[in-house]
Amino acid sequence: MIRADLLITDCRLATMREGGQVYGAIDDGAVLIAGGRIVWAGPRTDLPQHDAAQTDRLDGRWVTPGLIDCHTHLVFGGDRSGEFEQRLGGATYEEIARAGGGIVSSVAATRAASGDDLYASALTRLAGLVATGVTTVEIKSGYGLDHDSELKMLRVARRIGREAGVRVRTSYLGLHAVPPEHRADRAAYVDKAVDEILPAAHAEGLVDAVDAYCEPIAFTTDEVGRLFEKARSLGLPVKLHADQLSDGGGAALAAKYSALSADHVEHTGEAGVRAMAEAGVVAVLLPGAFLMLRETQVPPVDLLRGHGVAMAVATDCNPGTSPVASMTAALNLACVQFRLTPEEALAGATRVAASALGLSAETGTIEPGKAADLAVWDIERPAELCYWLGKPLLARRYLAGMER
Amino acid sequence: MIRADLLITDCRLATMREGGQVYGAIDDGAVLIAGGRIVWAGPRTDLPQHDAAQTDRLDGRWVTPGLIDCHTHLVFGGDRSGEFEQRLGGATYEEIARAGGGIVSSVAATRAASGDDLYASALTRLAGLVATGVTTVEIKSGYGLDHDSELKMLRVARRIGREAGVRVRTSYLGLHAVPPEHRADRAAYVDKAVDEILPAAHAEGLVDAVDAYCEPIAFTTDEVGRLFEKARSLGLPVKLHADQLSDGGGAALAAKYSALSADHVEHTGEAGVRAMAEAGVVAVLLPGAFLMLRETQVPPVDLLRGHGVAMAVATDCNPGTSPVASMTAALNLACVQFRLTPEEALAGATRVAASALGLSAETGTIEPGKAADLAVWDIERPAELCYWLGKPLLARRYLAGMER
Ligand SMILES: [Zn+2]
Ligand SMILES: [Zn+2]
Repeated sequence: MIRADLLITDCRLATMREGGQVYGAIDDGAVLIAGGRIVWAGPRTDLPQHDAAQTDRLDGRWVTPGLIDCHTHLVFGGDRSGEFEQRLGGATYEEIARAGGGIVSSVAATRAASGDDLYASALTRLAGLVATGVTTVEIKSGYGLDHDSELKMLRVARRIGREAGVRVRTSYLGLHAVPPEHRADRAAYVDKAVDEILPAAHAEGLVDAVDAYCEPIAFTTDEVGRLFEKARSLGLPVKLHADQLSDGGGAALAAKYSALSADHVEHTGEAGVRAMAEAGVVAVLLPGAFLMLRETQVPPVDLLRGHGVAMAVATDCNPGTSPVASMTAALNLACVQFRLTPEEALAGATRVAASALGLSAETGTIEPGKAADLAVWDIERPAELCYWLGKPLLARRYLAGMER
Repeated sequence: MIRADLLITDCRLATMREGGQVYGAIDDGAVLIAGGRIVWAGPRTDLPQHDAAQTDRLDGRWVTPGLIDCHTHLVFGGDRSGEFEQRLGGATYEEIARAGGGIVSSVAATRAASGDDLYASALTRLAGLVATGVTTVEIKSGYGLDHDSELKMLRVARRIGREAGVRVRTSYLGLHAVPPEHRADRAAYVDKAVDEILPAAHAEGLVDAVDAYCEPIAFTTDEVGRLFEKARSLGLPVKLHADQLSDGGGAALAAKYSALSADHVEHTGEAGVRAMAEAGVVAVLLPGAFLMLRETQVPPVDLLRGHGVAMAVATDCNPGTSPVASMTAALNLACVQFRLTPEEALAGATRVAASALGLSAETGTIEPGKAADLAVWDIERPAELCYWLGKPLLARRYLAGMER
């Protein structure tokens, strides 16, 4: 007799467990849930004796793990639709920068916004993720770029995790850009970000991981190395925006610090891929930014596959380069633009995404012990999650066994 | 004293009228509606005396004309997500065709489906359009390719217009592909499509316009010319899938028959553009298919602008090349991929789209005499409709003055 609160039945399961059927599929499945966790999942014909008081029949619908958006900048002030419009009207990047546009405008708007404002505006974007099956979202700081504003962003992220019906993992991204007031002394900003802001945020329990933007236009591998040493001393895992615009050794740096993930990686070469494979670093692919920036260099998917590097897919939701607030749109773009198979893409939004957040024990597959985070879909086959762009597909969503 | 049923106020209007402010914008606007039509629209300070019993206050939200998706294949049997998955798994087009894939599979599924099935499945896609502000949708036949099945599709389209809370314009697309049973005698199929099916569909009141797929892989300009002569004799306007994969003279043919629109037009050259301009043919741009097919030849937007050809934007929602069911996704892709300005794109989904359907007197702008088809948005500026991908933006929708 299994102790259970809820039986989910009359459904098809894409468990996303590795090593069995494609999608870890079970044709006629059932799931038992107790205390918010999966206690049993398998073919309905094998359903054990249980005492679940509630039964949810899903009319043959497909159930996947709740989707995980493992790379977002969901919290920010303002948006950049005005800049988007100016650029399409013919304004150059220089003209937009002179008019106060670019990341500086997001930093100014984020600093000016109250925590309540940031929370409310983040929820409007979160609505798009939740409507496309997301149950866990990673949220980065990085538009504050000073002590108070970075902590303000991370507190908003924590509040989303407490109040908005979604699991949240935070990343401290102090090394996102050099703030305007530090243009003349970037070293002083790096010192502050590493030695003051990160420890303060960590002391307040606001940091699940430490991230940085490693690129010639942002921070050097030396600067990021300093940050990662500090993260290590604090016992925090790291991840990295790596090799988005050029092969600057970002993937190798991520590997050196056994990062959870190296993200973007469009320009990562074979040495970087090999280093990632050896260190078990996940490659997080971000096809929304690729689309919006009209990039032509796709990530080295064949190399990643060949070396056995696991690939995650995320929205990169942010105001400048990826105003994408739909997880299924990210899946579609990953398949269309990067030629991931639907199974790879869906693994990248579930099992592998969990791994990119250090949450493999908690979520990402449908199997006993994991949280009962589930998405129920109006589809005939899992590939539809990647095939459609903009069709509403979600029937319901469970977070820790509660329909939300 | 103006007779009115409903006053909409406390809003910003993007009237999309030509010749005034960008977006035809009115900062603090109001709209009076009577009998489903707009009887007055303008600045709130100029609001005339009226007797509207109901007032809807919109808390400063933006109101646009209801969006118009002027090119869809919304009604079809099955989907092609399996084929999508096979292709990403490495199957060649030939292998897929040998396995019964491609358009032939949609034709078989459409023929096999009942009208009720087709209606129900179309509604699942329509949900995505409606959720992104669509109040008018064009729906083509063309997956039946025999007498009964083509009429079945068109009847389903009419039913959507009666029952599903959206205006529908139908297009007869008998010359979409040569059906499998006619591969050996395509001329006989063209005869049937032109001389039997079209007149029968028209006699039943099922046809608002006549469309064809003019391309070396589909139908020749001579074959399409025959169809268009018949349309002319029946008093029906025409439109054309033109120059999507090659410059085959499609745009010029459309111009010769004063078509409502020439659609796709990626490969249309300057002569074709000039002919379209002279004949007042709208160019319907379809960025979803461009994305999904990974095309690299963008439509000649600068030429179209230079010659004063109006540009519409549509989803091309179809199972093979554009499984796109979001009008705002189409707007985003038109801006990102084709470099339309947000104002051009929004005009392309309102005023110009109405013109592409011969509905300029009915909808497409907010001005007296037009139907009160309106979309109300949670945005701070109209450009957000083009900037975001997948963020839910619609607050409410009016169809003929009724909130739906
Ligand atoms: Zn990022
Ligand atoms: Zn089409």
